[in-house]
Amino acid sequence: MIIAIDATSGEYAPYETVKGAIKAAQEYEVDITLVGNKTMLHVLCSRYRNKLDINIIEASEVIGPHESPVKAIRNKPNSPIVVGTRLVKEKLADAFVSAGNTGAVLAAALFNLGKIKGVDRPAICSLLGITTAEPVLLIDAGANADCRPSHLVQFARLGAIYCQRIIGISTPRIGLLSNGEEETKGSQLVKETHHLLKTTNLNFIGNIEGQDIPTRKADVIVTDGFTGNIVLKTIEGMGDTFVNSLRQVGHVFSNAYRLQGRALLQDLGLAKRVDYREYGGACLLGINGTVIITHGRSQAKAIKNAIGLAQQTAAQGITQLIKEETNE
Amino acid sequence: MIIAIDATSGEYAPYETVKGAIKAAQEYEVDITLVGNKTMLHVLCSRYRNKLDINIIEASEVIGPHESPVKAIRNKPNSPIVVGTRLVKEKLADAFVSAGNTGAVLAAALFNLGKIKGVDRPAICSLLGITTAEPVLLIDAGANADCRPSHLVQFARLGAIYCQRIIGISTPRIGLLSNGEEETKGSQLVKETHHLLKTTNLNFIGNIEGQDIPTRKADVIVTDGFTGNIVLKTIEGMGDTFVNSLRQVGHVFSNAYRLQGRALLQDLGLAKRVDYREYGGACLLGINGTVIITHGRSQAKAIKNAIGLAQQTAAQGITQLIKEETNE
Repeated sequence: MIIAIDATSGEYAPYETVKGAIKAAQEYEVDITLVGNKTMLHVLCSRYRNKLDINIIEASEVIGPHESPVKAIRNKPNSPIVVGTRLVKEKLADAFVSAGNTGAVLAAALFNLGKIKGVDRPAICSLLGITTAEPVLLIDAGANADCRPSHLVQFARLGAIYCQRIIGISTPRIGLLSNGEEETKGSQLVKETHHLLKTTNLNFIGNIEGQDIPTRKADVIVTDGFTGNIVLKTIEGMGDTFVNSLRQVGHVFSNAYRLQGRALLQDLGLAKRVDYREYGGACLLGINGTVIITHGRSQAKAIKNAIGLAQQTAAQGITQLIKEETNE
Repeated sequence: MIIAIDATSGEYAPYETVKGAIKAAQEYEVDITLVGNKTMLHVLCSRYRNKLDINIIEASEVIGPHESPVKAIRNKPNSPIVVGTRLVKEKLADAFVSAGNTGAVLAAALFNLGKIKGVDRPAICSLLGITTAEPVLLIDAGANADCRPSHLVQFARLGAIYCQRIIGISTPRIGLLSNGEEETKGSQLVKETHHLLKTTNLNFIGNIEGQDIPTRKADVIVTDGFTGNIVLKTIEGMGDTFVNSLRQVGHVFSNAYRLQGRALLQDLGLAKRVDYREYGGACLLGINGTVIITHGRSQAKAIKNAIGLAQQTAAQGITQLIKEETNE
């Protein structure tokens, strides 16, 4: 299986990206295609290329994190985001992983790969690993700011398929994010969606609230992309605060008691659980191909995890499963 | 100044509520009126009533946290929520504090006190104390699930007044919560609100994202009540996770090194910073009177802080200031 990787985007590219890709090539059964500045990538990979199957494809244009997505993919056809999604289209890669501008990845995926027939709005399905061993899925985590109830029902179906195949839960609990657990609570959008979800064959457990996200009350959390994106980033912000505080605790312990406080804290794995750098990323669901978006601040481990997720997503045939579901 | 307190609502009522009220009467220049089951409250206060000015008013009906607000206040006129807001209306109290059903408090406030002329939608202004010394204001934290751009602009004005007078920031930075910092990002509601906010004389700093909440990028965060409520509860949920993890760290340290781990952690004040039990509560802004809603899981300290906030809110004449602003 070939995974194409955007080696240019993200705060720690290309060094951490390449490091993560090499680790993935060593750990998983994947061949890697790095997309970016060829000269630079050759230098970075020189030590590994005779041992590992790492291909390099030139794409020297760079799309910045704040560029207008549609304009960027039109003006920079030779950027890793455009080239990478095209590799998937042309079956030269089984999946594409990027830590780049989410809007641009989405736009390039729509342009090069297109929507699956029957899917109205492709969505971002984000894997939240907060306190439990298995991540909670949040869909939509940012692709569609304004939604209709039927879109949210479709997100629920996409999320359920992904949860079944990737997390391995046969009948995932679907929760609708709202401002109260009673079905009378919510915006007009949520109230209508609640009503629709009750008529489906999904394992819909009703509305869930913000505090239910870290406790994993639902396996799949359905929301519009505006709310989902804000919630995701709020969790990340709180996670940063948490990790910083833990580091501070570690320092204080180390200083006060001359102990390996930080090491112990690391062993406890607490920081890890809320640290997005460990997350596997998010999957674009509803497009004709496997595209994984990982955090802009991803370091080697997150890149490696995202490649693992890409491999799993492609191997499970998620795109085909969605096609079957939506063309029923 | 007289503060009326709902002594029946909330998970730890009446014991913690009464304890908090007594502490407030000792620390602040307030007279306390406890509203609830008279016999019970007499027993709980007997030791303090000759030293402190604590009044007790009978209201034996109980509104549960999940009751339908409008139905509840209609069917239970002798509940602390209805009686307490009426005390404010009749000038028998300067403010009312409740840890009860938020919807019911809002409904009773609207019914008994009414909206300030010129305010379209009263809103909940929540004080978030996450990592910095001074709280960030989040408005609307749950009163209005569906909003129009003009409502959000009004929330910004209400929040700015509250921030100036209660937090003491002369020109508070107003941030609009969105799924991207660029003004082109957001739902239709947010994009239109952004445009309107730019035309006001407020210190509008543009869109802010979820991760900017704990870092206090803005002093006042403006959002609709649906998003605001979800964000607030997500932060609380993450805070709970954080506090539980810190406790776990404390235990491990104590066991491993026979140290007073937990005590040290408490000294660091980390748990405190993310613990809503320390928050002062939220203020209903835009109604004719001072009403503070505090968390359903409030214990004595949070109740005491909420009473302090109620006193400050009433003393600063927030209601009058809003009247002046909206009748301009």
